[in-house]
Amino acid sequence: MTDVLRPGEAARIASEDEAVSLDELRLAARNHGMPLEALRYDLTPPGLHYLLVHYDIPFVDPATWRLTVDGHVGAPLALDLTALRAYPAVSQVVTLECAGNGRARLLPRPVSQPWLDEAVGTARWTGTPLSTLLREAGVREDAVDVVFTGADHGTERGVEQDYQRALPAAEALSDEVLVAYEMNGAPLPPQHGAPVRLIVPGWYGMAQVKWLRSITVLAEPYTGFQNEVAYRVRASADDPGEPVTRIRPRSLMIPPGFPDFMTRRRIVSAGSVELSGRAWSGRAPLTEVTVSTDGGASWAPASLGPVAERYAWRSWSATWQAEPGDYVLSTRAADEDGPQPVDQPWNMQGMANNMTQQVPVTVR
Amino acid sequence: MTDVLRPGEAARIASEDEAVSLDELRLAARNHGMPLEALRYDLTPPGLHYLLVHYDIPFVDPATWRLTVDGHVGAPLALDLTALRAYPAVSQVVTLECAGNGRARLLPRPVSQPWLDEAVGTARWTGTPLSTLLREAGVREDAVDVVFTGADHGTERGVEQDYQRALPAAEALSDEVLVAYEMNGAPLPPQHGAPVRLIVPGWYGMAQVKWLRSITVLAEPYTGFQNEVAYRVRASADDPGEPVTRIRPRSLMIPPGFPDFMTRRRIVSAGSVELSGRAWSGRAPLTEVTVSTDGGASWAPASLGPVAERYAWRSWSATWQAEPGDYVLSTRAADEDGPQPVDQPWNMQGMANNMTQQVPVTVR
Repeated sequence: MTDVLRPGEAARIASEDEAVSLDELRLAARNHGMPLEALRYDLTPPGLHYLLVHYDIPFVDPATWRLTVDGHVGAPLALDLTALRAYPAVSQVVTLECAGNGRARLLPRPVSQPWLDEAVGTARWTGTPLSTLLREAGVREDAVDVVFTGADHGTERGVEQDYQRALPAAEALSDEVLVAYEMNGAPLPPQHGAPVRLIVPGWYGMAQVKWLRSITVLAEPYTGFQNEVAYRVRASADDPGEPVTRIRPRSLMIPPGFPDFMTRRRIVSAGSVELSGRAWSGRAPLTEVTVSTDGGASWAPASLGPVAERYAWRSWSATWQAEPGDYVLSTRAADEDGPQPVDQPWNMQGMANNMTQQVPVTVR
Repeated sequence: MTDVLRPGEAARIASEDEAVSLDELRLAARNHGMPLEALRYDLTPPGLHYLLVHYDIPFVDPATWRLTVDGHVGAPLALDLTALRAYPAVSQVVTLECAGNGRARLLPRPVSQPWLDEAVGTARWTGTPLSTLLREAGVREDAVDVVFTGADHGTERGVEQDYQRALPAAEALSDEVLVAYEMNGAPLPPQHGAPVRLIVPGWYGMAQVKWLRSITVLAEPYTGFQNEVAYRVRASADDPGEPVTRIRPRSLMIPPGFPDFMTRRRIVSAGSVELSGRAWSGRAPLTEVTVSTDGGASWAPASLGPVAERYAWRSWSATWQAEPGDYVLSTRAADEDGPQPVDQPWNMQGMANNMTQQVPVTVR
């Protein structure tokens, strides 16, 4: 068994030829990606939506649950579920993606939750705008950060903690952030944060605090583990790095044809093949999606579907005249800030790796 | 990339020191176990129930779906969903478990879906008794096997197939088997077989055919891939082996305390610790559950909860006076045919491994 890390120790990087460890498998057996054929659904059914739980799924009794809003405010709040639901409700369709998506495709591989491409999902979230609660609590004008604490508890690299993340006050006060109590029109399932979670549209999953129990406004920068240590893009162990924030562009395709059980390699019949999928970016509006059938040597434009909501994925489609042979299919999104990389954007913790998908296919 | 197997090739066994392959990780990222803290729920929420999909989740339009019942019968049927729902409905609470549960704990490890301990879940399934449909179709008295075909399509060890499994006619005609269209009171989710699946209480998951589209009665034994090749307990590559049928006894505990993120090792406070979990067997009624706090050297009885329904798991609990130190906790179920093994019941394909769980814990 791998030893538990002590405070200050960096996460491990696998050696060049090291296969997946039992520690990583244990996480993969609990947490799960979205099977890519579920890209067909505008709204991902809850059990197919990707899921990452840092510690255990806590049981929170909705009857006794309370949300406190305090810190650098004039009038602290303590709300039960009935009080929270009494505010005007807002619904948004939002695509969520784990910041670690693509990590297990990196070489060398940072050792953590070993995602391939599938840590994504889209749902309609309903709740109270966070800004409503902050304003009602009398948030001070010089607020710097707003801290969100969940009911899930564990240790991580030697630091015992409730899961806790902060947002800059300006982001927290935007009209987009929700304190959500419904997913696709039903109360949140246990694994998605019941009874109440945060939804920060456009940001990676680490910001979407589940099992939310307190909101604390700070007059100084927050320096907790998940902001300062865990979710950073660091080139080396002594690089303080940049914080992980908004979702970089990505496009994924529904693998065409049918799979081999063990390798997931696809078998496709020759002829006209309709390729389709979804693309999204939390960073800037999408500008195009392209498709490659030669492993990324050349790219052809896909037809991009309409914008439904700003932070929801967009459908795309393209037609491929498939001749018998072996191929690697790929798709690439670009937003106003640029395209997905074809080569890996390696970093110490395997964060925000939006390298293009590769789908091996045999046409017969 | 691992090559796709050709027909007749056996599944691969990993070498003694071989870690998890990318092929196995790809399956683990799609399929998922039940996080063990969800043992607290009598009925597992759908997104937490274990999930194994051999190929892709097919999209089946409920409006055009038909179920045929034919073969060695006097009056073949073709039913739409309205016609199926018109029969009297029966509900049963059933614990389902994948036949490959525990596979990745075997040494050497058969290479397939790499389950640890968590491929289990319990739900209330509602549908029409299979015997009602078979009798209405005029099943012949000399029927031998009944074949169930799903809408999911793929290749497996070189054999292209729709997922298909047979049950002996006597099992198919028992009053227990359901043609189910609801899970926990709602229409089946896509990943659990929408719109209609088979539920064979007491049998491992391979019998629970999802996306069911046809039922064919045979006057001779069925010899298809999933019965004759895939789901067998074989000691060696040339051993024809025994078919995998009913679920062997197993007990699992909710890991106490809280976890370390990367290792999932538990941290528990010294003092009186309430241990709890669930136990089940599809083979014979449970007789006892025991608990070990010394890695299996000694066992103490747990308190076993009431029988709710014959094929639903039973709760158990035990109190542990925890002193500071490192421990391996374990739990063991026995049914009328005997207890779980403490040593691995190794076989070529890693089937029906019900070796006892091990939970490393540090008490502080």
